[in-house]
Amino acid sequence: MGRLVAAHGAAGALACVRAGRWPGEFAAAERARAGRRESDLERRLESWRARLPLVDPGRDLAATERAGARVVVPGDPGWPTQLDDLGDARPLILWLRGDAEFRFACLRSVAIVGSRACTAYGAQVAADFAGTLSERGWTVVSGGAYGIDGAAHRGALSGGAPTVCVLACGVDVPYPAGHTHLFDAIRADGVLVSESPPGARPARTRFLVRNRVIAALSRGTLVVEAAIRSGALNTAAHAADLSRHVAAVPGPVTSELSAGCHRLLRESAATCVTTPEELIELIGEMGGDLAPVRRAPTLPLDTLSPEARRVLDALPARGGAGPATIAIAAGLPLTDALAHLGHLSAIGQARQTPQGWRRRPTPPP
Amino acid sequence: MGRLVAAHGAAGALACVRAGRWPGEFAAAERARAGRRESDLERRLESWRARLPLVDPGRDLAATERAGARVVVPGDPGWPTQLDDLGDARPLILWLRGDAEFRFACLRSVAIVGSRACTAYGAQVAADFAGTLSERGWTVVSGGAYGIDGAAHRGALSGGAPTVCVLACGVDVPYPAGHTHLFDAIRADGVLVSESPPGARPARTRFLVRNRVIAALSRGTLVVEAAIRSGALNTAAHAADLSRHVAAVPGPVTSELSAGCHRLLRESAATCVTTPEELIELIGEMGGDLAPVRRAPTLPLDTLSPEARRVLDALPARGGAGPATIAIAAGLPLTDALAHLGHLSAIGQARQTPQGWRRRPTPPP
Repeated sequence: MGRLVAAHGAAGALACVRAGRWPGEFAAAERARAGRRESDLERRLESWRARLPLVDPGRDLAATERAGARVVVPGDPGWPTQLDDLGDARPLILWLRGDAEFRFACLRSVAIVGSRACTAYGAQVAADFAGTLSERGWTVVSGGAYGIDGAAHRGALSGGAPTVCVLACGVDVPYPAGHTHLFDAIRADGVLVSESPPGARPARTRFLVRNRVIAALSRGTLVVEAAIRSGALNTAAHAADLSRHVAAVPGPVTSELSAGCHRLLRESAATCVTTPEELIELIGEMGGDLAPVRRAPTLPLDTLSPEARRVLDALPARGGAGPATIAIAAGLPLTDALAHLGHLSAIGQARQTPQGWRRRPTPPP
Repeated sequence: MGRLVAAHGAAGALACVRAGRWPGEFAAAERARAGRRESDLERRLESWRARLPLVDPGRDLAATERAGARVVVPGDPGWPTQLDDLGDARPLILWLRGDAEFRFACLRSVAIVGSRACTAYGAQVAADFAGTLSERGWTVVSGGAYGIDGAAHRGALSGGAPTVCVLACGVDVPYPAGHTHLFDAIRADGVLVSESPPGARPARTRFLVRNRVIAALSRGTLVVEAAIRSGALNTAAHAADLSRHVAAVPGPVTSELSAGCHRLLRESAATCVTTPEELIELIGEMGGDLAPVRRAPTLPLDTLSPEARRVLDALPARGGAGPATIAIAAGLPLTDALAHLGHLSAIGQARQTPQGWRRRPTPPP
């Protein structure tokens, strides 16, 4: 259908379906392209034609107005052109409901997705990441489901940037019902998006085709928690197909809900990301959004020379030892050992007691 | 010292240190090699010479006998030749204490290392991995410390294969003291190993040089939990230098004790491993030890044709619909729709009720 509309326009495509006849050249190209038989093509046209009685654009537009929604189509100034990367699978139309400027909001956007039946750990990580990303001006895109999606939207709302919720039902259908208040909040500060007209109920296939829109809208997709069988992995696969970044948050190996993330990491299909900064480095401007490398704190011992370290090792932990004994144990001339003992004492690593020198009690590394 | 012993033998090296004179050619080679100044070389020799009064091989051998220990040196039939990969840093001698045949035990061995202050999660994962590896005939090598090391040794003991504990003190020194019983158990079923003579106390530098022996003995090193500053990362770095496999277990990103593992994964310095089988695939024989790919269970819906799936999606969740309505919604001829309804009913996905056909209640994916 995407190719038919691209070749003959929406009105032309509708006329073909009504007439029950493929344009000759188009049918030939389709047969050559996919190796399809004539009967397959006829069947496809027949199935579209059977749905015609259900189509009522006037009703859809009236419902759109009633819901306070609007539509964008490819070519509109408000159309996010990154969706064109979907090629033939580009949506033909999107319904929008909410106060945010959709195209602008998606310029710096990242998808955060994951399981509905997430753990408290996953929900916390999703909300933390979304909150920080939103504070830094990134738009969080997700699917409005229970679990990770909901936590991501809520975190994003707390951060100040708009959040985009791509639904598998109409923009006026509160599904799941428990997220009715969340959808209200998203409309106020962000935008609800759907490929289906107002009133459309959620259906299995709509969830899967919806996922490609989430992936295509965003610069990258972060999977927070996902079982091996998970719609989030489907979104990640779409993102990879579109040459978008894919990132995954690791979790306990004892959690089935992190198994999907770990599979992405094991197959090098995703980058391991543990902080929002690391995600921003991945999806942000080259060189402009570098995450700080996590470093250990510098301890005084790090600055010791190898000889001073040997003197430290030669110090007894209990009792005490004289400088000559220490110098021999460290394999150093007495004068050098005395100098190092003074330095170690100054940084609090050695102590002079009536019994002699001893180490400040710390366990070995 | 490794190069001096390699060039002139242990007795020759001792004679050089006693005399306080480098062999002329050797000193020239050292200067050329490391760009060292004459004074550095003299200083090095002086520091070794200062330690001579502490050296008493007769006392060490008597202590070895008292402890029921034995020694192996390079070239012995019992010497694990994989240690030769350490080159100049190869140990000059190892003390062994325990009933296992050391060289044989290390032929199929893997190091499991991590933080002393581990979490319950880390301890459980270390023990689980070690237990399974041991059951499959793999020797677990670790360092005998509290935390991950101890959990790994305990898990290995439960599995039946010997476990190898490389200590930073003498093989007769129970350090840490709380592991005295663990060391007794390791001696009975495995072997305690040390580069230091009996009676040697643990010292800072000994822990770091010990780590290279753990890495070199094993086919690969698994880091279970490690903070950013951790001796386990030092062992992993040695393993990488020796072209051994490095693996890391992911954990919660909220845990500082997994941060070291995640850094290894982010820097592609380690393979993400979540089950013992995945670790065995990594370190095992090429093609002989493949881990099963984790797959989702196959649901009846997976086997549906696209048309049957459309019929399923056309079914209402509540009430019921007649076959003609369903056929139109699915975009299929009535006869095809009826056939699919029969199949869906047979696999329990559709139900015929007095109100018409409806879906078996399941949530969308």
